[in-house]
Amino acid sequence: MSLLPAAKIGGRRVVLPSRAALTSSSRLFTTSTATPAPRVSPRTNVFPSKVLANPSAPRRALATHASPHTYAKLTGEDITAFASFLSSPSSSLLTTIQPSDSSCGVKPVGQDELDGYNADWMNKYKGRSQLVVKPKSTQEVADVVKYCYEKRIAVVPQGGNTGLVGGSVPVEDEVIISTALLNKVRSFDEVSGTLVCDAGCILESLDREIGAKGYMMPLDLGAKGSCHIGGNVATNAGGLRFLRYGSLHGNVLGLEVVLPNGEVLDGLSTLRKDNTGFDLKQLFIGSEGSIGLITGVSIVTPRRPSAQNVAVFAVDSFDAVQQVFGRVKSHCGEILSAFEFMDQDAFNLVVHHGIKNPFEAKHPFYVLIETSGSNKDHDDEKLSGLLEELMESSMITDGVMAQDESQAGSLWSLRESIAEAAGKKGAVYKYDLSMPIPKMNELVEHLRQRFNDAGVLGQDKQIKDVVGYGHIGDGNLHINIVAEAYAPEIEALIEPYVYEWTSGVQGSISAEHGLGYMKAEKIGYTKGQKSVEWMQRIKGLFDERGIFNPNKYLPSQPASK
Amino acid sequence: MSLLPAAKIGGRRVVLPSRAALTSSSRLFTTSTATPAPRVSPRTNVFPSKVLANPSAPRRALATHASPHTYAKLTGEDITAFASFLSSPSSSLLTTIQPSDSSCGVKPVGQDELDGYNADWMNKYKGRSQLVVKPKSTQEVADVVKYCYEKRIAVVPQGGNTGLVGGSVPVEDEVIISTALLNKVRSFDEVSGTLVCDAGCILESLDREIGAKGYMMPLDLGAKGSCHIGGNVATNAGGLRFLRYGSLHGNVLGLEVVLPNGEVLDGLSTLRKDNTGFDLKQLFIGSEGSIGLITGVSIVTPRRPSAQNVAVFAVDSFDAVQQVFGRVKSHCGEILSAFEFMDQDAFNLVVHHGIKNPFEAKHPFYVLIETSGSNKDHDDEKLSGLLEELMESSMITDGVMAQDESQAGSLWSLRESIAEAAGKKGAVYKYDLSMPIPKMNELVEHLRQRFNDAGVLGQDKQIKDVVGYGHIGDGNLHINIVAEAYAPEIEALIEPYVYEWTSGVQGSISAEHGLGYMKAEKIGYTKGQKSVEWMQRIKGLFDERGIFNPNKYLPSQPASK
Repeated sequence: MSLLPAAKIGGRRVVLPSRAALTSSSRLFTTSTATPAPRVSPRTNVFPSKVLANPSAPRRALATHASPHTYAKLTGEDITAFASFLSSPSSSLLTTIQPSDSSCGVKPVGQDELDGYNADWMNKYKGRSQLVVKPKSTQEVADVVKYCYEKRIAVVPQGGNTGLVGGSVPVEDEVIISTALLNKVRSFDEVSGTLVCDAGCILESLDREIGAKGYMMPLDLGAKGSCHIGGNVATNAGGLRFLRYGSLHGNVLGLEVVLPNGEVLDGLSTLRKDNTGFDLKQLFIGSEGSIGLITGVSIVTPRRPSAQNVAVFAVDSFDAVQQVFGRVKSHCGEILSAFEFMDQDAFNLVVHHGIKNPFEAKHPFYVLIETSGSNKDHDDEKLSGLLEELMESSMITDGVMAQDESQAGSLWSLRESIAEAAGKKGAVYKYDLSMPIPKMNELVEHLRQRFNDAGVLGQDKQIKDVVGYGHIGDGNLHINIVAEAYAPEIEALIEPYVYEWTSGVQGSISAEHGLGYMKAEKIGYTKGQKSVEWMQRIKGLFDERGIFNPNKYLPSQPASK
Repeated sequence: MSLLPAAKIGGRRVVLPSRAALTSSSRLFTTSTATPAPRVSPRTNVFPSKVLANPSAPRRALATHASPHTYAKLTGEDITAFASFLSSPSSSLLTTIQPSDSSCGVKPVGQDELDGYNADWMNKYKGRSQLVVKPKSTQEVADVVKYCYEKRIAVVPQGGNTGLVGGSVPVEDEVIISTALLNKVRSFDEVSGTLVCDAGCILESLDREIGAKGYMMPLDLGAKGSCHIGGNVATNAGGLRFLRYGSLHGNVLGLEVVLPNGEVLDGLSTLRKDNTGFDLKQLFIGSEGSIGLITGVSIVTPRRPSAQNVAVFAVDSFDAVQQVFGRVKSHCGEILSAFEFMDQDAFNLVVHHGIKNPFEAKHPFYVLIETSGSNKDHDDEKLSGLLEELMESSMITDGVMAQDESQAGSLWSLRESIAEAAGKKGAVYKYDLSMPIPKMNELVEHLRQRFNDAGVLGQDKQIKDVVGYGHIGDGNLHINIVAEAYAPEIEALIEPYVYEWTSGVQGSISAEHGLGYMKAEKIGYTKGQKSVEWMQRIKGLFDERGIFNPNKYLPSQPASK
């Protein structure tokens, strides 16, 4: 069922392999080519069309939003200087450049040895940095950054490099500062559940470590096996536990950040309550490395639940899906940990893909519910009672409840195999949007209508399927449009229509993936011009030389819708 | 049991009366004098000592951290201009100044009619503003602020004026912009529980309104009957539901803010997930009116629980209190809504004050637990099972569980009457601190030792009691030091010791009350100089003319410890 050799966690989630395992055989998507990756792979469908039209265009052609700053080119003197800041230059420094002082402990390597850092894991984006620095302490990060500041050398902070929008790889030849060797747990308080750790700790490792003490990380994502907690914070990662445990803006207690001028902002508080001045850490949560490099994270972690239940309900309309959401919140609000929906086309896709269908009849919508609590008997009773009430009230037309962990995994696979099933069937145009819950199905219907009007939707036509699914609780809609192949005329039917429509209902064109390189210029669809201008001022305040993650996150000029 | 004539909510919480009811007979504290209030009342014990030494000093003497900006004095022309921005000048404008155009709809009033806006509800702080503006729309706020910006007129935003640190009253003669007439609910989505409302909506009214739909506000405070939601957000109010529902940084979805230059920053999103650029709203949460005036709030609200339980446990040591906290989180993590502690001296104080003691023996510590869930039988069972395990393991030595709402109220009054009992017994030095949980009792013990060493602690001495209590779950410690009378030599034993000690354990000198006027210069005890400097830069970025809430929140010069 999984395209990956990696283990499935909890019987259901696909985990990104470590970078070392990212060979062509373990690729998540079938349309990418093997390394060395092309600058623009065929599945980069959401790129500006001028790039799509010229897939072999040099990387520079992508820089539609070039930084107004100029940056220094690296020299051998720079390498020697960087080596002098590091306790272990030989393991912390990877470069193609000959250092000016050959006794500095650094031997240059071939450019291909930097490929894993220059390209993102999907091989959608690739830069040509000549230097990766992996500091082993906050002070080493600070020294490296301060030097870059003084010399006006551009920098890209990199965590697990599992992002989807090209935010953690160089656009040009930025120095890559990796948090890979900042990987120690600094403290864990078993009374409060407060974890303080280096930014480079891997999410899954942290979850395992505190799991042994009865706690768990308040976030969980497909990339958990590779992603760094610092990157999670820098991208304000959402994920599967968002509905229950909320946003990192609420869970992160403190951050240690190296600013673009090399200053260390030590805000690694473990306090849950502290109203003394601006909450500066909030600025760095979701800042995507644009104004600082996170080196340490303090985060509050919840108790690990001892019981879990999963059920899937069949529902007749999207209105009913929303009603069911209300009833579920009312019945088992405090144990609800997931409320996912998928439409009939999404369901059919996974069933044709081979996932077992627990229902006899067809239904317009399906809802998956997960509960996580401290008492299995109580949770079972709540869920059974809910199911009974929902069926009696005709809000749902059928329902199944997992009797064990294996059945729970099967039910989850109905929801979690959608992207995979779509990828197997054809070329997929994917959108990750958030919007008011009542609007979520409308956009999917509009798109189907639009394609029908154009005569391109059908199993024997250019577009095979338009499927809608996602996290109802978070208003997070995923749309997968399965096409025979990527084609400019299909893309023109979708974009900018999807962004404009989302903008029209005050939605977000990036629910949780961020802006990175891919959507820096599209922010105007979600944020007003004044907001963007204030963001640019904040960027300018913290990074007046523009050395941190240039060409990303924000437009260089004020955006307009 | 309550000093106030106001109703007790949920059988336990003291509610602030509306401003109109704030006569001397309804005062919460016994040592304040009746209106008109002195500039410095006898209980302003945490003021700089030079002010304490001269309680009749003119207000200006308080301005130890004077704004470096200069401001215009109001003229009759200004009043006429303000009137022209308002749809209803006669009800929106209260001033002692004769307008230049007598046909503008404004008649001047006596200075005493502005007393309710110039003084805080405790009568600790009093300014001498000559103008209160109560706009009826965001546009009116924007027009007023823009005019102030152009003319360099200083402004103080004011919500329910229930703050404790002098943040919402003028220091000098700032124009008061009140949100009192911005009081409409804009929308409530019964599927997602998302509420969008004007900033001037009263917290309790909102809670009642959405309560009828099965939801509740994610925060609750003693001042709920008067405080405005905009003020709650501006001060990042914590309160009684913090342990369960977390911080406003996680619950607020969007804000509409009028910036110091009159620009309206429209960020009134209802999206739960939106990763498009800096999360600007976070800057305004807890900014205490220093960089913007919040006019609209979008907030996610949780389902109202259908069952509540309260229990009190007797515990032998503070170590055991922490162990109990761990067990309670493990057993009933998802239904836990409060975990409060009080030490023996705090308990004795309320029992002597007349609150019924449910225990026969004396115990070093007491813990109060509240659960809120969707199924009473389940919650009862969880709590009973927990109680049994705790007693068998000897973590607790005794325990009582409320059998009905009235008993629950009685148990809560053990915790909630502490401040009142202290106030009845003498002059109270109060501190609201947060720190790592294991440190919470240490400071209380250190203070007792310190007073014993000085020979001032005892029922027949200057200091009667030193009591510690608070929210274990939030690391929020309250210390009440009950003295015979306020005295400089007693204060000198406490301050700066308490602040220095708190600083030494990386604690916060203001857990939830904010900085306002009272603690603007004390921020250095909790935040490092670099952080304060970045805060000052942010203040300068948004309010380069310094017209918003001058002399408050941040030191005018970089703080040093």
